[in-house]
Amino acid sequence: MNSKLDYVFPCLKIINCLSPLKLVYLIIFLAILPTNAQTPVGYNLWLGYPQIKKQTVRSEYLRTTNSIFFRAKTPVLQTARKELLRGLEAMLDTVSGVLDSPNAMNTMWVVEKNDLNQELRRKLIGDFERIGKEGFIIKSVLVNGKGILLITANEDLGILYGVFKFLQLMKLQKKLDELNIIEGPKLDLRMLNHWDNLDRTVERGYAGFSLWNWQKLPEYIDPRYIDYARANASIGINATVLTNVNANALVLTRAYLEKVAALADVFRPYGIKVYLTARFSAPVEIGGLNTADPLNEDVIEWWKDKAKVIYQMIPDFGGFLVKANSEGQPGPQNYGRTHVDGANMLGTALQPFGGIVIWRAFVYSATDATDRAKQAFAEFVPYDGKFLDNVLVQVKNGPIDFQPREPFHPMFGAMPNTSLVMEFQITQEYLGFSSHLVFLPKLYEEVLDAETYRKGNNSTVAKVIDGSLFNNKITGMAGVANIGTDINWTGHPFAQANWYGYGRLAWNPYLSSDMIADEWLRLTYSNDSRFLDPVKEMMASSREAVVNYMTPLGLHHLMATGHHYGPGPWVNDLSRPEWNPTYYHKADKFGIGFDRTPSGSNASSQYAPELAKLFNNPDSTPEEYLLWFHHLPWDYRLKNGEILWDTLALNYQKGVDQVKEMLGIWKQAKMYISEEQYNEVKMLLEIQLKEAKWWRNACLLYFQTFSERKLPTGVELPGENLEYYKSLKFPYAPGN
Amino acid sequence: MNSKLDYVFPCLKIINCLSPLKLVYLIIFLAILPTNAQTPVGYNLWLGYPQIKKQTVRSEYLRTTNSIFFRAKTPVLQTARKELLRGLEAMLDTVSGVLDSPNAMNTMWVVEKNDLNQELRRKLIGDFERIGKEGFIIKSVLVNGKGILLITANEDLGILYGVFKFLQLMKLQKKLDELNIIEGPKLDLRMLNHWDNLDRTVERGYAGFSLWNWQKLPEYIDPRYIDYARANASIGINATVLTNVNANALVLTRAYLEKVAALADVFRPYGIKVYLTARFSAPVEIGGLNTADPLNEDVIEWWKDKAKVIYQMIPDFGGFLVKANSEGQPGPQNYGRTHVDGANMLGTALQPFGGIVIWRAFVYSATDATDRAKQAFAEFVPYDGKFLDNVLVQVKNGPIDFQPREPFHPMFGAMPNTSLVMEFQITQEYLGFSSHLVFLPKLYEEVLDAETYRKGNNSTVAKVIDGSLFNNKITGMAGVANIGTDINWTGHPFAQANWYGYGRLAWNPYLSSDMIADEWLRLTYSNDSRFLDPVKEMMASSREAVVNYMTPLGLHHLMATGHHYGPGPWVNDLSRPEWNPTYYHKADKFGIGFDRTPSGSNASSQYAPELAKLFNNPDSTPEEYLLWFHHLPWDYRLKNGEILWDTLALNYQKGVDQVKEMLGIWKQAKMYISEEQYNEVKMLLEIQLKEAKWWRNACLLYFQTFSERKLPTGVELPGENLEYYKSLKFPYAPGN
Repeated sequence: MNSKLDYVFPCLKIINCLSPLKLVYLIIFLAILPTNAQTPVGYNLWLGYPQIKKQTVRSEYLRTTNSIFFRAKTPVLQTARKELLRGLEAMLDTVSGVLDSPNAMNTMWVVEKNDLNQELRRKLIGDFERIGKEGFIIKSVLVNGKGILLITANEDLGILYGVFKFLQLMKLQKKLDELNIIEGPKLDLRMLNHWDNLDRTVERGYAGFSLWNWQKLPEYIDPRYIDYARANASIGINATVLTNVNANALVLTRAYLEKVAALADVFRPYGIKVYLTARFSAPVEIGGLNTADPLNEDVIEWWKDKAKVIYQMIPDFGGFLVKANSEGQPGPQNYGRTHVDGANMLGTALQPFGGIVIWRAFVYSATDATDRAKQAFAEFVPYDGKFLDNVLVQVKNGPIDFQPREPFHPMFGAMPNTSLVMEFQITQEYLGFSSHLVFLPKLYEEVLDAETYRKGNNSTVAKVIDGSLFNNKITGMAGVANIGTDINWTGHPFAQANWYGYGRLAWNPYLSSDMIADEWLRLTYSNDSRFLDPVKEMMASSREAVVNYMTPLGLHHLMATGHHYGPGPWVNDLSRPEWNPTYYHKADKFGIGFDRTPSGSNASSQYAPELAKLFNNPDSTPEEYLLWFHHLPWDYRLKNGEILWDTLALNYQKGVDQVKEMLGIWKQAKMYISEEQYNEVKMLLEIQLKEAKWWRNACLLYFQTFSERKLPTGVELPGENLEYYKSLKFPYAPGN
Repeated sequence: MNSKLDYVFPCLKIINCLSPLKLVYLIIFLAILPTNAQTPVGYNLWLGYPQIKKQTVRSEYLRTTNSIFFRAKTPVLQTARKELLRGLEAMLDTVSGVLDSPNAMNTMWVVEKNDLNQELRRKLIGDFERIGKEGFIIKSVLVNGKGILLITANEDLGILYGVFKFLQLMKLQKKLDELNIIEGPKLDLRMLNHWDNLDRTVERGYAGFSLWNWQKLPEYIDPRYIDYARANASIGINATVLTNVNANALVLTRAYLEKVAALADVFRPYGIKVYLTARFSAPVEIGGLNTADPLNEDVIEWWKDKAKVIYQMIPDFGGFLVKANSEGQPGPQNYGRTHVDGANMLGTALQPFGGIVIWRAFVYSATDATDRAKQAFAEFVPYDGKFLDNVLVQVKNGPIDFQPREPFHPMFGAMPNTSLVMEFQITQEYLGFSSHLVFLPKLYEEVLDAETYRKGNNSTVAKVIDGSLFNNKITGMAGVANIGTDINWTGHPFAQANWYGYGRLAWNPYLSSDMIADEWLRLTYSNDSRFLDPVKEMMASSREAVVNYMTPLGLHHLMATGHHYGPGPWVNDLSRPEWNPTYYHKADKFGIGFDRTPSGSNASSQYAPELAKLFNNPDSTPEEYLLWFHHLPWDYRLKNGEILWDTLALNYQKGVDQVKEMLGIWKQAKMYISEEQYNEVKMLLEIQLKEAKWWRNACLLYFQTFSERKLPTGVELPGENLEYYKSLKFPYAPGN
């Protein structure tokens, strides 16, 4: 019984002291407490637990959860028990009996493998092998001839995941009596990367500011930290990098490490390890050394000492994420050393404590004139097999930078002896910030399902990532978080689906995005199919819509400078050529597109020969990548029989039309959700529609100056001229 | 009975169907429910409406509100009706009958004066005169021989305020049948000043970031905007300046004005007008002119045109707040003109539309070597009577800058022919940010009650401010907001009391801070006197505590540079002398303090002779201002018989002890509030205690280098040395 209750009802234990009428009052009083509170919409994410009203379902669930044996020996198990009771009590409107030891009345067991009897352990031996350290089993089993529902796992974290899964099944109103779920994560590291600065701004953050209130840490623990951990644990995320990859060495000082340790303490019972970004020049900036050369003895010692201090304060510290020699960040190359030198030096420092180094492959040179798309591959592939076992290389999903669409990064499959971590962006830097509804699991799925051909057919990116293709030691996925201080966490309510969906795919990269949308919608809004079916449709189409109204047919990086808000295809005056949109689209009187075939940059050669062949010929290049690989004339004829210019224009128009359809679908969905839920998405879809038109108008007017062709029938005429669009300035667009 | 309850207890009405044991379970379950709803603590401010459980009270309230005639002809009245129903339904757990026309069954009327019958209007004529445009009457009256409760007002906004007052009375469980409240605000402008930047950082903001999401405006209306307006209207705030006084001209461009107009639309039905800060150089920065000289014809025209555009978009726009020729802000002096030239030029531009200019008097020169405390008075008092009628001069409460304690600003009372607006700081720039519990109405009250002697005895600052002393045309008070994106709005839950209390004092500057504390605690936490009495005590002592542990005995501006976080009395290397703490405390071998008597800067002469005389003699100077006005030897003997050094040290210790006592009181209060409510304040009090010790240690160690005396008995010895405290750096302290 919680302490609050004791205060409210000091005489609870002598319940007879209350007359029945007084009891009624007490009950009324207690029931009113919550509704009076104005819960801001969206705070609960997918973890709201509405009461189950359907009597048949409720009866079954009450029966199954009537008497639970749940031995909570560790903090993670205590978390699991708390979550289970929280969910059951809310959904079933009752208190389940939970006991520390088993008895004959039990209807349900939630216990680690070691607490199972010999017989069950033997019976489930195959299952236990399949689920690994973090998986779980949810299964109806016989104990002394009586059926009970069992949630078990090899370790405590598996129990926590199993409990969340079980609650989810109840929320989806699944039948419980014949459950047989044997499930484990396919990746080891399921990480969030927060690009959060120490001043609480968030690079590429569109949901307010950083959750981490460094000023009040370590003493003040914001309740949001706990809710953040709950949300992540519920989808299997087990690692969080607290700080921006454009790193600040100060986070490695003792004052900040105390704050980091406080967060680690909050996250630990939810199975989440804390990581930090390590600024390569930290030994100079905070260590008083005059070099950060990774082969220098003092530098090596400094990092070893730093690791020791960190692990004294945070025994389960995860490790370092490093952006080095990229976009101005310092790195080993400043000292004539290589990425391997730098990464392995840090790996050696962390190795005694079980820590890992995640070294980012997002590099392109300030001086190298080679196609930017080729540079990461060229720099890193030669190092394959040279990194230490506890060093992983983190690769963005595409070779440029989180565009609405890119072909998969050619490094995937090209480094069989290196653990490659997939880096997806959940925050919508190039996809409309938090004002556009774009269901990103559709994009993630496209990348994960992509065929690399590196070990013949069926060598998908997912198989590279999960280690099954090359048998890697550690596997992982990273998602650049879209989480901030906005009350609904992600700015756009549907951006919660991207956090959720990212987590699900990090758990299992073979899940379908459609299934994820279904799951998320049910958990967040409603099980009503009249709501679900059209809204799923809206989500499914949303990614293609943003590609159409921003960068159709393989175009990329047309965004305005710096903040990347809105179109800027005309920009060509930035100091580095590859920062200019004109570098990427290369529109001229002849045509448009980037020739990456052997007649051009030959980036296609970085793919397996099967793919290179496909990509080298415009006729065999999938149309969604056409202008990524080819510079084609305006009157090039596409498979639809139309010329390139017309198709391009019609694609832009289609993107706008798709957003109109999304708005139409949402208006139909109004009656199934609350007014607040409806309104916020409607207002945002209206912004999206306005901005889709802006994209279409600005890009077509600009490209038209080269094509010198009329807009085809069906494309709406822009209301403003090109100069107007060029004149727009947004000095305070967020996330810059 | 509310609908949720029906789901929970379908058989509640037949309570006998439950065995006592089941009832216990139900009670347990219900006690746990609130956590399930996950309402983030503190979001509701003082506007939560818990159900009224006491049957006698409930019956009376049900009777009184049984049938309500409420004609809601205007948006403000619609707001009032919505608020009334929201409160009644939550507190009484029923739906009240509300009708657009009166009938014989009515128990309550909520109607504007114009909708009252002749008889009532005649009867209440004196009351209507007393309450002014925004006041209200809540009164039991006879209509056709039948008693009804009447809420009425001259205009719709008065009705809204009356409704909030009425709900508040219910929450405090006052008897309704003999109400006779005749109340109107004593000040015209009750303003919040938001020092919010367009990038959403907040200068001196410690509660997250700016509420104004400029990126998503005007389309996306965050529900918080509405809750912000509700909170303000509930305490009578009727004006909000959206932007920082360190102003950005861009907010005056059309793109931003559209966003401002959207906010104005949200706030209008709550009786709140929107104001903006006007950057004096805007004609150059966004107008394409090459001067901002206020006497230049083009400049004059530009501002007139700008005013016209603004009023086309926002017909009830309030006006401009201007910080000019202060701390680097541009102003008329850049062109050899005066504050009067600048302010009146803007006043002329706004005058046709009913707008006003609020010109800040917070000025001190980069070149003038005069005591900074004297400069605003010296610059402004000669202009008395020269400002246009729609120009107000806004003066900070003290002559330096929002210190824990300052004597009142000598301009109050010294400009009888000028409307002076009081500027208080609600955000705790110099008072521990949002980590320290400091009940500021105690400070405001001290200033408002201060005697200026400008028209003989009883010429208090409050009487200057409310216009009663000099019969000013427009009166006002401004509070620099402490509001941000933190879920509880103000960072510290008790900082909500400062927002609330500021609003109450802007409505009526004669209210007592103790009464405000009582009101706020009841509305926010509990009516239980076992909670109220000690916690009120804690609030009442909190302001003296912060003075003691930061700047006792009239010391001031000892804070660290820039962010003002923590102590920095040793700082003496900043480019302008008056930015250095050493400028203010002047500690040396002889003693400590700033001589502002005729032997020193003679700032005392800016006060009325009665006060100057008092302040010129250390023996008659109130001890809380001693070192503000005098430089005294370390062994100067105070009224307590102790020498200055010992008293100073004991004061610092006392401040620490007071925080310890506050923590003790809070621990006793635990049982009357929720665990979350308890924990958050406890964690913050622990930060406050740590920082109070830091202040004591750092200041005493530093001053000891001059006094060369031992710490007196009773003062705890610092655990670190002075160098340690000097070495502390906080580059990312918020609000800078």
